[in-house]
Amino acid sequence: MAKDKKLVSEITSMDEDFARWYTDICKKAELVEYTSVKGCMVIRPYGYAIWENMQRILDKMFKDTGHENVCMPMFIPESLLQKEKDHVEGFAPEVAWVTHGGNEKLEERLCVRPTSETLFCEHYANIVHSYRDLPKLYNQWVSVVRWEKTTRPFLRSREFLWQEGHTIHATAEEAVEETERMLNVYAEFCEKSLAMPVIKGKKTESDKFAGAVSTYAIEALMHDGKALQAGTSHYFGDGFAKAFGIEYTDKENKRVLPHQTSWGVTTRLIGAVIMTHGDDNGLVLPPAVAPIQAVVIPIAQHKEGVLEKAAALKERLAAAGIRVKLDDSDNSPGWKFAEYEMKGVPIRVEIGPKDIEQEQCVIASRWNGEKVVVPLEDLESAVAEKLEAATAGMFAKALQNQVSRTYSCTTLDEITESLEKGDGFIKAMWCGDEACEDEVKEKTGVGSRCIPFEQEQLSDKCVCCGKPAKCMVCWGKAY
Amino acid sequence: MAKDKKLVSEITSMDEDFARWYTDICKKAELVEYTSVKGCMVIRPYGYAIWENMQRILDKMFKDTGHENVCMPMFIPESLLQKEKDHVEGFAPEVAWVTHGGNEKLEERLCVRPTSETLFCEHYANIVHSYRDLPKLYNQWVSVVRWEKTTRPFLRSREFLWQEGHTIHATAEEAVEETERMLNVYAEFCEKSLAMPVIKGKKTESDKFAGAVSTYAIEALMHDGKALQAGTSHYFGDGFAKAFGIEYTDKENKRVLPHQTSWGVTTRLIGAVIMTHGDDNGLVLPPAVAPIQAVVIPIAQHKEGVLEKAAALKERLAAAGIRVKLDDSDNSPGWKFAEYEMKGVPIRVEIGPKDIEQEQCVIASRWNGEKVVVPLEDLESAVAEKLEAATAGMFAKALQNQVSRTYSCTTLDEITESLEKGDGFIKAMWCGDEACEDEVKEKTGVGSRCIPFEQEQLSDKCVCCGKPAKCMVCWGKAY
Repeated sequence: MAKDKKLVSEITSMDEDFARWYTDICKKAELVEYTSVKGCMVIRPYGYAIWENMQRILDKMFKDTGHENVCMPMFIPESLLQKEKDHVEGFAPEVAWVTHGGNEKLEERLCVRPTSETLFCEHYANIVHSYRDLPKLYNQWVSVVRWEKTTRPFLRSREFLWQEGHTIHATAEEAVEETERMLNVYAEFCEKSLAMPVIKGKKTESDKFAGAVSTYAIEALMHDGKALQAGTSHYFGDGFAKAFGIEYTDKENKRVLPHQTSWGVTTRLIGAVIMTHGDDNGLVLPPAVAPIQAVVIPIAQHKEGVLEKAAALKERLAAAGIRVKLDDSDNSPGWKFAEYEMKGVPIRVEIGPKDIEQEQCVIASRWNGEKVVVPLEDLESAVAEKLEAATAGMFAKALQNQVSRTYSCTTLDEITESLEKGDGFIKAMWCGDEACEDEVKEKTGVGSRCIPFEQEQLSDKCVCCGKPAKCMVCWGKAY
Repeated sequence: MAKDKKLVSEITSMDEDFARWYTDICKKAELVEYTSVKGCMVIRPYGYAIWENMQRILDKMFKDTGHENVCMPMFIPESLLQKEKDHVEGFAPEVAWVTHGGNEKLEERLCVRPTSETLFCEHYANIVHSYRDLPKLYNQWVSVVRWEKTTRPFLRSREFLWQEGHTIHATAEEAVEETERMLNVYAEFCEKSLAMPVIKGKKTESDKFAGAVSTYAIEALMHDGKALQAGTSHYFGDGFAKAFGIEYTDKENKRVLPHQTSWGVTTRLIGAVIMTHGDDNGLVLPPAVAPIQAVVIPIAQHKEGVLEKAAALKERLAAAGIRVKLDDSDNSPGWKFAEYEMKGVPIRVEIGPKDIEQEQCVIASRWNGEKVVVPLEDLESAVAEKLEAATAGMFAKALQNQVSRTYSCTTLDEITESLEKGDGFIKAMWCGDEACEDEVKEKTGVGSRCIPFEQEQLSDKCVCCGKPAKCMVCWGKAY
C-alpha cells in the first residue's frame, strides 16, 4: 500500500517548502490548472465544487439577512472610476483597460471592474430618491480583475471570483451596523463551515480600503504562521454619496446624504482552507464544503457480493443526504486511499468480504487518521457523527495552532525573539501613530493585521515608541 | 381602483408599439436599469432572481446528465483566439480588447471572452492524454462580451450572462449524441419550465456557429410573430482538436483525435419569456421561474384580524414550499393588484374581513385573469393546482399562437401573402442552395431559422428555384 500511495501523493512536504507544498496540492488535488493567460487560472471541477458549496452557504446567509442578488456590468468607464478621488487612486494603477471594441478604438477607455462601488453608486443615484427607497441591500457573485505582478493560485491572481455586497442606508448608524453584521456573517461562516478560527477587528488607517471611512476584517493564521485576510467589510460614510450626487428626501422632506457599505470574500478562502487544514498527504476538507463528504471503497472487489454491498452502502448514505461517491474503478484500494486522502475527502468507508460476513464496515476520518469498525446497521448515524466530529476537531486543532503561535509582546525585542520560534500572530500595544506602525514592520517584519474587537490591556505603552498606547494591535506576516 | 392602476402600469400597449411595450416592461417590472456603460445593463434583483431560478433548474439538468462546472479565465490571448481559422474570423470583429494592465502596455493584447472554445481546447490539450481521460463533460456559468452595435435589454447586449457547456469525446458518435442530448435538455426546459413551445432543428450552413461542423437550435415564436433563437448546441467534429493539438491514446495504443461539442443558453431567455407570455398589464411569469409565485394581499387591512390572517396564509404557503410574499404595505389594494400584475406574479391571494368571516379567500390567476373563491382549508392545494394550471395554460396559449402564425407555403408569393396577415413562422421546402436561401430573404423578408427535425413533405420542389427539394425549412424574421 505504501508504494501505491507514493504514486499519487508525491508532493513536497510542508516543512521542506511550504509554498511548493501548497502549489503541489492545488495541482495534485485537481483544484486548478495553469493557462497561457498570465496570472489567471482554470478552476477545475473539484476546486469549483468547493466554491459552489461556499457560495450556497453564504448566499443563504446573505438572503437570510435580507440581501438580494443583482448583476452589474463588468466594465467601468474611466470617468466613472475617477469620481471618488481616494478610490481611483487606490485602484487605477492595477486595472486592466479595454481600449478597442472590434476594430474600433473606444472614445473612452473602460476598465474591467476591480470592484464595483462606482457602478453601484451610479445605480443608486438612479433609483434612490426617498427614505422609502432605503435601505438597498445588494450582493453580486462575479469575477474581478486586478493586474497583480506576482500571482499564486487562489491567494493572488489577476482574475478572481468573489461576492461583493453593496448596501445603502438612511443613517450612519444603520450602515455601521450592517458593516459589523456582515463581518460577523463571515466570521461565523469561517468558523462553522470552514472550521477556521478568525480574529475580527478593524484595519488601521494605512490599511483601509480605498475610499472607506473604516475597514473591518477577519484574519486567519495559516499552518506556516502567516496571516491571511479572509474577508473584509467597509463602512463608507457619505463620501461616495457626495461624489456621485446620491441624495434622498427624508421624512421631514429634507434632502440628505445616505450612507454606504461594501463587503466581500473571494476564492482566496479555498487557499485558506488548504493552508489551515492540509497536511503532507494532501488536502483536508471541512465537511460543509467538501464536494465529496464520504467515499465508499470496496476491498477485494472481485469477490462475490462486494461491489453490490458497496453500492448499497453508497445508496444508503446518499439517501441520508450525504454527498457520497463509490469508487469501483479497477485501481487498487491503496491507490484509492491515497487519491481520496489527497483530495481531502472527510470520510472513507471501507467494505470487504470479511466486513460483509461480520455485518460491519470500517470508517476512517481524514482529519485525524482515526479508523473505527462500525456495525452496518449504524452506517448513516456513524458517518454523520464522524462528519460532525471532523468539523469540531478540525476547528479545535486549527485554534490550537493559532493559540500556540500567538505571542503577547511589550517590546520590539520580544517580538523579534517570539518570531524566532516561528511566524505567528503578535499581540502588542500601539499608540496609533503610523510612524510606529511602519517602524514595527521595518524592525521586526510583522505588519499590522487588525485592531481586534476583543482588546486586551497588555501594557500602557506603545510597543514601539513607549508613548501611551491607544489599543492592542494584532500583527503578522501577510499573505 | 382603475386610477390607482394607471399609476404603476402605464406602459405602451403591445399593439401600438411592440418594441416600446417590451422596454417598458423591462423598466417598470424592475428587471433592468440602464448604465453609463454603453450597451450594458444592470440586472436588478427581480430580473436576477428569474435568472437564478433558470440557473438552478438548468444546473440540475446538466449535473443529472453528468456535467461538472468549471471556471475558465475571462481573457483570451490574441494568439490563442487565432488558432482555429473559422472561429477567429467569426468572433474577432466583435470582441473587446484589453491592451493595458495598470500603466503598462501588454506585450500581447487579450480579448474579453466572446465564448470560450479556445480556452477549453488549451485546457483539454493539458489534461486529455488517454481514452481513460474521456469524455470530459464541462459547463460554466459566466458572462461574455460581444461588441454589438445596437442593443436591447436581454435580447442583445454587449455583455450578457450565459452558460456554456463544453465537452470532449472519444468518438464522433458520442459527440453528436451529446449535441442532440443537450438540445433536448434545452427544449424540455423551455417547454416545461418556461411554458414556451420551441421548434428543434439544424441550422443551415450559412447560419452555423464559427468553427462548427453543425449547429442545432431551438426556435421560439414571440407575440409579435418574430422568431427568437432560444438556445444552440454545436458539434465540432475534430476541427478544434486538430488546431489545438489535442490527441489521445486509444485502447489499441494509437494516437487519435477526439471530438468536441459546445452548447449555450443566455439571459436572452428572460426576453423570450417576456415576449411569449407578457400582456398589456405587464409581465406574465411561468411559475417555475417566478421569483414570487404567489402574493397575499390583505383587503381592508386596517380592520381587526385581517393582517394577522394574511400573515398566517403567507406562512402556510411558505411551509408548502411556495415562493410567497405578503404585501402589508400601506399602498391601496388596487395599487398592489396592478403592481404584481406588472411583475407577472402567477397567483394573487386576496383576503378581507368578509372572506375571514366565511372562511375563504379569493385566488386570482395572472395568466388568464380567472378569479375563484376557495375555502381556507384548501389554500395550499388550490394554489398548487392553479400554479400547475398556469404552466399548462400558458404553454397551450403560446402553442396556439405559434400554430396560428405558422404558414405552410409552396411559392414565394404564398410566403408574401401569408406575411401580410402578420409575421410568423413559414414552412417551405428548400433545395439546399445558399443562393435560394438568400433570395427568399431578399424577396420575402424571412430568413432560414432552422431545418426542423420534424420534417413534412410539403412539396417536391424548392420554394424558390423549383428544383428538387432537399428538406423543409422553418423561416422567420429574427430577433
